[in-house]
Amino acid sequence: MLGSLPAFTRLEAELSKLPGIGRKTATRLAFHLLRTNEQDVTALAEALLELRRKVGFCRSCFHIAEGELCSICADPQRDRRRLCIVQEPQDLLAIERSRAYDGSYHVLHGALSPLDGIGPDDLKIAELMQRITEESVEEIIIATNFSVEGEATALYIAHLCKQNGVRVTRLAHGIPSGSDLEYIDAGTVQQAVLGRREF
Amino acid sequence: MLGSLPAFTRLEAELSKLPGIGRKTATRLAFHLLRTNEQDVTALAEALLELRRKVGFCRSCFHIAEGELCSICADPQRDRRRLCIVQEPQDLLAIERSRAYDGSYHVLHGALSPLDGIGPDDLKIAELMQRITEESVEEIIIATNFSVEGEATALYIAHLCKQNGVRVTRLAHGIPSGSDLEYIDAGTVQQAVLGRREF
Repeated sequence: MLGSLPAFTRLEAELSKLPGIGRKTATRLAFHLLRTNEQDVTALAEALLELRRKVGFCRSCFHIAEGELCSICADPQRDRRRLCIVQEPQDLLAIERSRAYDGSYHVLHGALSPLDGIGPDDLKIAELMQRITEESVEEIIIATNFSVEGEATALYIAHLCKQNGVRVTRLAHGIPSGSDLEYIDAGTVQQAVLGRREF
Repeated sequence: MLGSLPAFTRLEAELSKLPGIGRKTATRLAFHLLRTNEQDVTALAEALLELRRKVGFCRSCFHIAEGELCSICADPQRDRRRLCIVQEPQDLLAIERSRAYDGSYHVLHGALSPLDGIGPDDLKIAELMQRITEESVEEIIIATNFSVEGEATALYIAHLCKQNGVRVTRLAHGIPSGSDLEYIDAGTVQQAVLGRREF
């Protein structure tokens, strides 16, 4: 019965493509947007268009960036001799929130997962190795998730880095196994950064 | 630390204005949108802009419409002598899904709620009375929610309609299909007993 409402149905369909938003939530959101003030809807639409126009990834560490370099790589105060390796930008933000780390990062954009067909070439591992040889990196702090894929990725990267004579550490295992860094409280992440150990 | 990402932060802020979407969900959605293909993001933004440009409310029944009249009011097959009164367009859709009704509707856009400062003037009640006097309405079927506000609104509208000599009915109040009597609240059972009908 919504067949004669193409614009409404289209918005519903687009909203329900988002993760965690099913058909009923999409309908509820569409009705909300129909009622809310027009400025807010326009602002949301413009923010969406602007996101893809302005936000990309840092050419050095692959964190999200609005420009060539992210704010961390562009900051001369950050210690560039230490690289913290994370799976996703969200994980980087979790470590930043802990305020326990003033080094640099490298975002892999995933973890090794042979079952899903994700191998080293699908991650930013070659770029990491290039940074290690070109920049004077002294320590690699592996902060991949404590999941099967994250641990496998940690082992793989540790092996590669040690071949290059770089010190490799791992976040302390104070974080419960199988959980995502993104959702851990800042205090726990801080403890994990401070308690990192030789790999 | 997201201070240097104005476009990303702006989208997060706009998303978190939506009902049921908190800060963490907004961040997750923004990261998803950053990674998804650009076409989908553009399609969502355009659907948002199109919604407010094309979708409004039917000038007769106040259901959502893309044009002057909604699909139901524009349909000559629908019986215009019966008006079903609902609080929201979503309620209308629920009745349409039941396929049990081929009359017309009138959407109030809310229910009387003195505590929230919502009086008769905030609802489409004057417009309903105008329809009753101008169109040859024979029956008003009140389908407001069975909540305190919905019942108060039903009483108020029933009173007004009876003054106009129109037959007023209310959706049956009783036990929902497929449910166990054991788990139904006492109020509903009471209504079902009082409203019992010939078998």
